[in-house]
Amino acid sequence: MPLVNIKITNEGVTADKKAQLIQGVTNLLVEVLDKNPATTVVIIEEVETDNWGIGGEAVTERRKRGL
Amino acid sequence: MPLVNIKITNEGVTADKKAQLIQGVTNLLVEVLDKNPATTVVIIEEVETDNWGIGGEAVTERRKRGL
Amino acid sequence: MPLVNIKITNEGVTADKKAQLIQGVTNLLVEVLDKNPATTVVIIEEVETDNWGIGGEAVTERRKRGL
Amino acid sequence: MPLVNIKITNEGVTADKKAQLIQGVTNLLVEVLDKNPATTVVIIEEVETDNWGIGGEAVTERRKRGL
Amino acid sequence: MPLVNIKITNEGVTADKKAQLIQGVTNLLVEVLDKNPATTVVIIEEVETDNWGIGGEAVTERRKRGL
Amino acid sequence: MPLVNIKITNEGVTADKKAQLIQGVTNLLVEVLDKNPATTVVIIEEVETDNWGIGGEAVTERRKRGL
Repeated sequence: MPLVNIKITNEGVTADKKAQLIQGVTNLLVEVLDKNPATTVVIIEEVETDNWGIGGEAVTERRKRGL
Repeated sequence: MPLVNIKITNEGVTADKKAQLIQGVTNLLVEVLDKNPATTVVIIEEVETDNWGIGGEAVTERRKRGL
Repeated sequence: MPLVNIKITNEGVTADKKAQLIQGVTNLLVEVLDKNPATTVVIIEEVETDNWGIGGEAVTERRKRGL
Repeated sequence: MPLVNIKITNEGVTADKKAQLIQGVTNLLVEVLDKNPATTVVIIEEVETDNWGIGGEAVTERRKRGL
Repeated sequence: MPLVNIKITNEGVTADKKAQLIQGVTNLLVEVLDKNPATTVVIIEEVETDNWGIGGEAVTERRKRGL
Repeated sequence: MPLVNIKITNEGVTADKKAQLIQGVTNLLVEVLDKNPATTVVIIEEVETDNWGIGGEAVTERRKRGL
């Protein structure tokens, strides 16, 4: 029954990579906490780089500097 | 003053349906908890089916099997 | 499969009132969006009044003034 | 290390305004709580006006009435 | 830089199990998305069983029936 | 009408510091986005150090090493 929310920057993650995340997190919750996979929910949120700040600036600016 | 966040898969919910959810949840909070509707906020988030996993797989895959 | 998160101030809501919220929100999602109640999740978060601000001040201060 | 999530209606906020929010919130956490800005994350979520309800109705409807 | 939020019911998860979740999710994000573990944040939220509803009822009630 | 959620580790933040955060964030949203302070909500969530991971380990472990 656990709920997992994964926030990442929106930079071209494929459906296949998302599927790997969903499966991997679900398996982890089964292994570590013995949770029921059938009711384990994983939601991936992709955030625009203008809307994600770290170190006081948007990721968009960091990417321009190669960070 | 309550805040309600509703996450659903992005599968064509109309503005009218959203309005029904907003009104229904607000009424419920007034009835059950005597909250002030004027400051009750309801936010609906629509999540792509590739980004919503349950049972270890994306909803996109489940929809292909008619689930 | 929808997920609903309800945030309210922590001011003595009983388990019975919480049960009414859970049932009411679940019913609403079934009625409006034809969702499956078996996989509809409702989470209630109770927030201390020192930790909830509106109008630039904590609810604790507002309560002292009878608001 | 703090995480800040800012939800606003999607009504044309520019990248420059977002940058001001990111910088301002980060500075505030440094000043008030002495947090490390390098690991302070600020995420801005823009929500469609159909999906944001207050007072039991969508912001879309309120905007039509000039609210 | 990803942020992961894991919500589970508050039913006696040990600090060691939490550490396993934190490490496992961080490793997964490194492997699947090549994210930097140093800035990957994992937050675990434990929710009282009265405050977690599924199928229209609180988990507290389900536990009484052995579910 | 904006909603701000601030997550910090639970390490003894006073009510006065919280009030400064609430006021500071509210003022920032008024200044940058011309939002109405009366309907601006700020919620502070304090997370136990066992439940907050960064760099693949809990903050509890990092604090023991003086980080």
